Order: sequence, then structure tokens, then C-alpha cells
Amino acid sequence: MLERLRQAQDTITSAMSAIDGAPFREDRWERPGGGGGWARVLQDGAVFEKAGVNVSAVHGTLSEQAFSAMRARGIETAARDFFATGLSLVLHPHNPHAPTVHANYRYFELGGGEHWWFGGGADLTPSVLYEEDVVHFHRVLKKACDRHDPAFFPKFKAWCDTYFFIKHRNEARGVGGIFFDDLHDRPRDALFDFISDGLAAFVPSYAPIVERRKDMPHTDEERRWQQLRRGRYVEFNLVWDRGTHFGLRTDARVESVLMSLPLTARWEYCHEPLPWQQDLLDVLTQPRDWV
Amino acid sequence: MLERLRQAQDTITSAMSAIDGAPFREDRWERPGGGGGWARVLQDGAVFEKAGVNVSAVHGTLSEQAFSAMRARGIETAARDFFATGLSLVLHPHNPHAPTVHANYRYFELGGGEHWWFGGGADLTPSVLYEEDVVHFHRVLKKACDRHDPAFFPKFKAWCDTYFFIKHRNEARGVGGIFFDDLHDRPRDALFDFISDGLAAFVPSYAPIVERRKDMPHTDEERRWQQLRRGRYVEFNLVWDRGTHFGLRTDARVESVLMSLPLTARWEYCHEPLPWQQDLLDVLTQPRDWV
Repeated sequence: MLERLRQAQDTITSAMSAIDGAPFREDRWERPGGGGGWARVLQDGAVFEKAGVNVSAVHGTLSEQAFSAMRARGIETAARDFFATGLSLVLHPHNPHAPTVHANYRYFELGGGEHWWFGGGADLTPSVLYEEDVVHFHRVLKKACDRHDPAFFPKFKAWCDTYFFIKHRNEARGVGGIFFDDLHDRPRDALFDFISDGLAAFVPSYAPIVERRKDMPHTDEERRWQQLRRGRYVEFNLVWDRGTHFGLRTDARVESVLMSLPLTARWEYCHEPLPWQQDLLDVLTQPRDWV
Repeated sequence: MLERLRQAQDTITSAMSAIDGAPFREDRWERPGGGGGWARVLQDGAVFEKAGVNVSAVHGTLSEQAFSAMRARGIETAARDFFATGLSLVLHPHNPHAPTVHANYRYFELGGGEHWWFGGGADLTPSVLYEEDVVHFHRVLKKACDRHDPAFFPKFKAWCDTYFFIKHRNEARGVGGIFFDDLHDRPRDALFDFISDGLAAFVPSYAPIVERRKDMPHTDEERRWQQLRRGRYVEFNLVWDRGTHFGLRTDARVESVLMSLPLTARWEYCHEPLPWQQDLLDVLTQPRDWV
């Protein structure tokens, strides 16, 4: 799995570097309790305001808190030794017409393989709504899912809409994609292939979108709206995202956990959306089927 | 209590308006479950990037979640009807030499007065450390505390350092002040007088500081550092602040709860502090006694 993740990290950072023109910096970090990771970040590039593509593989003993969280999820085990590996990426482009994207694919193991599961997904967060971009993104993900099970896409699409929801704003973080967790209902090799296809789908799902939006002319008003949407992204990640919360309450590397935050964000009191901004909000409050 | 809070709201917004030159807008809001509030906000003024001074008085029936939270805090009661009133303010000035300030004074009652307590405090968050500002702020608060009990200030100062701590960064949000909660160990009138003195101390504690910093020349580097510190402010409020979390998980008015967030904030991956920035960080990792 780790080998496949590192390979995907290379493919993705090469493709994004080619679009931006700037390289990613890589930081190798080690986790005091066991394992570590490779953080790759491109900050303040020509196209990306902030782009992070992380791979980690950590192992050790679950904390009391983490163990309780596992039990609460219905995993009945006495095993406390764990292994977790995953790739996690968030790309925030400068241009307000180019959407932010997030993807994460991960594998978790307890008791040396007694319990194991996969999780992951990818989702898109535009500031300005281009329906063709959303349709393209969903289509590529659907194709990757359909190769494995026609039931995957509808199920994981709905799960994504439910998970990336900013409850206190009563709106979705973005226009969705796929999300799944606790996946272990077929052979490990089959699910590894699915994850592998998900990783391979990332560049084709996103690169054409950022390519056609990155140089679009934009107004100060569009940029300000993008900054407000970045604020909502921060709200979701810091208030509702389980992974972020878990990371901040354990001994994870803070700079890697919070790499997902945008370079800049904005909060205006009682902002009144303009009609074109309302178009996006309508989609965020009433998730649609795009394919 | 509400009358005293509304009077303090007038005094504080008048004083801050006089410093800024711009008025606060007032929004009257009603809570579906009972009561409501008066939100006063000054956004993008000459001195303040964002300034909010809210008063609310709400009543109703505790949700299951809120009731459990009360029990967890050791309040043994079957009563579910509550009354809560308070003043809450956060002022974020433009100038990076002028510190952000927060204050909150509140009263809570369960079962029509069967259980009641006061909470509150005030704390300062500079981006650039001016020791004389911190000393002044702490001195004014100490004087307000000492009039009631010489034990208050040392206890509430330490509580403030503990509460406003960003655990995942291992640093305090700011240079402290006072914080207290569950205060009910003497007659209600005596504690009301203490809260009243806390409210009265706000303008003298902060106005002289913002007056002397608001027009200081500043560099882009200082402004950028301020934006990074604003990011930490957001992290504390969204990840660790109990009041914010409670508000976002209940039916509180979101725009009032998140009024505390700055207009703009910034997150850089692995920012390396300069020596003058390290001076602030040293104080945030090792809280000092200022008076």
C-alpha cells in the first residue's frame, strides 16, 4: 500500500508542478510513537495559493481516547497496536474560478491485521459554480467506482454529501464527490485495487478543470467571495472534520494536519450574497446528482 | 443584570466608535426557543478591522446535550429550564501594533434560580509584544478584582492562562488577563457588583492601548505576521473554545457566535518566526506574571 501511495504522490505532485511551474518542497517527518511521513507542499506558486500532498505510514499503540473511539464505532477488539497509512491532499488555487480540491485514501489495521479497513474519497469546492466542471469531476470518479461495483458511486456520493456538511451553516462544504470509510466487506486485494484506481483518477478528475480556470480574468469581488468561501472551508475543517480533530487531539504533526487550511481566509459579518453567489449557495444547500 | 449589560454595551460601543470614527450597526435578533439579543458590529472601520459587542438574554429548555454537559460539570439538578444573559466582545484592530481584545461577562440560571452562577473575563492578544501594554491591561483588571477579593486576580489570571491555550500548538492564544466560571460562592448581589466592575474596567483597560498603537507605522512583514496570529485566533476559537463549540452545536445565531472571527486570517506551512516574532512566542509558551 505505502509503495502505491508514494507512487501516486509522485504522479500527482509532478502533474500539479507542471501546471504551476513551481516545485513542491518535501519534508520527511518522524512520529515519536512510530512511523512518519513525507509532506509535500507548494506555497504561493503561480497557480496554487497552497497545495499539499502528504503520505504517511504510522504505527504504535492506540491512546485510550483513540481506543474508545474505535469501540464507539463498533470495532470489537482488545488489540491496541495499529498501523495506518494514507495519502491526503488539498489544493487551493489562486484564481477564484478554479476550485479547491481534496482527496484522501487510507488503510487502517488493528492487531496486526485482525481488523482492517479502507477509507477515502475526493471532493471539489468551487467558489464560482461551473456545472461542466462538477459534472466532469463526478464522471471521472464514477468511472473509477463502476469498475469495481456499480453500487459504489451512488452510495459514496451520498456519503460525501452527508460527511462534508457544515451543520452550523446548513450548507455543504462543496459540490461533493465520493467519501467512504470502514470498507472491509470484500477481499483486501480487491479493495486495494479500488483504492489504487481512486488514486489514479485524481489527476484526470482535476487537472483539466484547473487548466481551464487558472488564467481566467477575475474581479476583486470574485476574489473576496473566494476568501469568504475559504473561511467556510476553515470552519468545516476545524469544527467538523473528524480527521482534523483526531489529529489535533493526538500527537500528529500539526503542520501536516493543518496543511489543509488555505493561505488566506475571510469572515464578514452577515454577508449578503449576490445573485451569482446565490447560485453556488443553492447547490450547497440542495446537493444535486451530477451524472 | 440585562440592564447593566445593555448600559455597558452603550458605554463600550460609544468609546470604540469615538476611537474609530465609524458607528456600530445594531441587529436585534430573536431566538426561536426564547429570548434573543442585540448584536453590534463595526466592520472595516478606520481603526477596527472587525469589532463586535453583543448582548443576549435567552431562556428556554436545555437540550439533551446541554443538560448532559451541565451534569458532567457536577451540577446536580433535574431542572431543565434555563436563563442565560451576557455581554461578549471581540475587537480586531487593523494596525498590527494594536492588540486584539476579548471580554465576556455572563450570568446563568437553572430551575428559576435553584442553581445560578457567573462567568467571564477579559484577555489581550497582541501580534507585536509591548510589555507596557500588557502590564497596563493586567493592572486595570487586578484593580477591579482587588476591590472584591485579593484572591480573585491571581486565581483568575492563572485560569485565563490555562483556558486560552491552543493545545495543539502548545502556546497561549494571547498574553492573558482574567477568566472565571461557575462563580457562586458568595451572595448574588456581591458577585453582580464584581461583574459590574469588570464591565466598567473594559474601556480603561483597552482604550489607552489602542489609542497609542492605532496609527503606528507598520511594515508588510508585521501585517503578515498579524495575519498568521489571526489564524491562530481562529484555531483556538473553532477547535478549543467551549462557548463557540456549544453555540455551533445548538441553535444559537451563527453570525453572533462567529462574530469573534477576524475579517482576514492566514496560514503558512512551517512558518519560521523572526527574532522579534519569537519574543512574542516566548511569552505565549511561558506565561508571565505582569503585575
